[in-house]
Amino acid sequence: MRDEFAKIDWLKTRLALNGDSSAVLVGIGDDAAVIDFGNRPTIVTVDTQVEEVHFRADLLSPRELGYRAVVAAASDVWAMAGIPSASVIALTLRDDFSDDEFRDLIDGVADAARVTGARVIGGNLSRGSSLTVTTTVFGLPISKSLTRSGARPGDSIYVTGTLGAAALGLAILEADRLDIERARKFAERWKKPPLNGKAAAVLARIATAAVDVSDGCLQDLEHLLTASGVGAVLHAPAVPTAPGYQAACVALSIDPMVLALSGGEDYELLFTARESAEAAALGTRIGEIVEGTGSRVLDAAGSAIELGRGGFSHFS
Amino acid sequence: MRDEFAKIDWLKTRLALNGDSSAVLVGIGDDAAVIDFGNRPTIVTVDTQVEEVHFRADLLSPRELGYRAVVAAASDVWAMAGIPSASVIALTLRDDFSDDEFRDLIDGVADAARVTGARVIGGNLSRGSSLTVTTTVFGLPISKSLTRSGARPGDSIYVTGTLGAAALGLAILEADRLDIERARKFAERWKKPPLNGKAAAVLARIATAAVDVSDGCLQDLEHLLTASGVGAVLHAPAVPTAPGYQAACVALSIDPMVLALSGGEDYELLFTARESAEAAALGTRIGEIVEGTGSRVLDAAGSAIELGRGGFSHFS
Repeated sequence: MRDEFAKIDWLKTRLALNGDSSAVLVGIGDDAAVIDFGNRPTIVTVDTQVEEVHFRADLLSPRELGYRAVVAAASDVWAMAGIPSASVIALTLRDDFSDDEFRDLIDGVADAARVTGARVIGGNLSRGSSLTVTTTVFGLPISKSLTRSGARPGDSIYVTGTLGAAALGLAILEADRLDIERARKFAERWKKPPLNGKAAAVLARIATAAVDVSDGCLQDLEHLLTASGVGAVLHAPAVPTAPGYQAACVALSIDPMVLALSGGEDYELLFTARESAEAAALGTRIGEIVEGTGSRVLDAAGSAIELGRGGFSHFS
Repeated sequence: MRDEFAKIDWLKTRLALNGDSSAVLVGIGDDAAVIDFGNRPTIVTVDTQVEEVHFRADLLSPRELGYRAVVAAASDVWAMAGIPSASVIALTLRDDFSDDEFRDLIDGVADAARVTGARVIGGNLSRGSSLTVTTTVFGLPISKSLTRSGARPGDSIYVTGTLGAAALGLAILEADRLDIERARKFAERWKKPPLNGKAAAVLARIATAAVDVSDGCLQDLEHLLTASGVGAVLHAPAVPTAPGYQAACVALSIDPMVLALSGGEDYELLFTARESAEAAALGTRIGEIVEGTGSRVLDAAGSAIELGRGGFSHFS
């Protein structure tokens, strides 16, 4: 494709059929897109993935990157108990990024747009020294938006899925240890964040607060606690991990509990709710909200344990 | 500021008072923002400014960059005959970007958010090798959204303001020729795109199509012509330029007409409309829409002239 405009023409065709476009009044290719969100509040979130900062290009293909960028942003919408409805994608491409790589990237974006519902309505193309994908995702709250600030003492703390698997997958790829049992499954878990649309629908009914686990469980919980003005007690033995997780951590000389509580990019949903069968069906109960500030982690005997708070922080 | 989260805390306070926030149900600091756009279609546009690609860091201060990034994106909303109402800002910061530079950048963003109406409701902070500002701006159509596709043969072509001044200002800065008469005024014109909110309100009433002049008049006109399925005749002597423009071009050995018709980043509005006093009060009539495709530029004698089509294209 000769230039920016040839790429945009191609994108118009490639992305035109993503989902129901009845609410999209103007799509890709004009000065701006126009969408009818209906007479409801709109959830808006933006996330950026930068090559060599958020991912190593040799570990993540363009298609995987495109998919991951959209799902990671959609995860914020699910954490607000919303349903993704549209997205705009700003790409910064290296001069040596080939047309094939570009098409693969967009294939990944299109796959994710389809499975999340965040159909692509517009975007921007730029040159740059690093491959960068900035994804703005819009969503509609299922009922009232679920913030981080509604947790109250007595609420239980739950998490969907398992923790640490994405960080373990990345560690496996970085150490080139695909010989470890279930290594590819963990690597895949890092590359493909979970789809939590159904979880969002349950959160809308039962949760008092929620956050998605992107920077590490303890760090993201801390944001929820601060926003809610409460503290938390976590039970380390209750933290859910995937089959083979412990053994793979041992093989890599990683502390399984530190990784589960501080490893980033799980994109699971951490939420607070009254203890209930429905909450337990959606996630694993890992602790409870208490008066105070900050979180304490207890071992099986109920003693407080110290863990490195090495959650992924972009600035240090 | 210690880390990403300290920066976000500061941003919450710094940007909290931008404009009326009655429609913002959740602002900066949660998983996502929530805004009520009302029961109307929403205009969405995204633009990226990358250091050393879109601007030289030594020619544009962080504050100027922040201002420019928001106004340039708002320009797309004005070109749709809309009023900017909100924005989300994704920043990629170099490790050596200081807290003072960060605050200056946000001051510029806040200034632009105030004057455009695009109050900041959310964003994202990342590290990266280049300073990058990706701005998503939302707006409300004043009446019906104005696309690029409504131009019809017989319509006149108008442009707001003057052409070429921004590209001239950049050329002056790059050549370090602030000795040229009115040099600082042209440099300022490049740094600060015009505010076209009032023009947008007129466009909503009278224009049949519009595009903002970001890549150069001829190139942006071409997009409008293609979208509308029509051609154009432009009258070179009618093209409006600023006082001192010709002399400054001569001093830099630049062809004034080539620059006016192909220089980028004017962020003026090119629109088509029936010829009228109201249209003439808003812009300068530079030509007319005809049957066919592409544009022909005529000199004072009515002869077709060839111009380099060096409009700013991101990919080549």
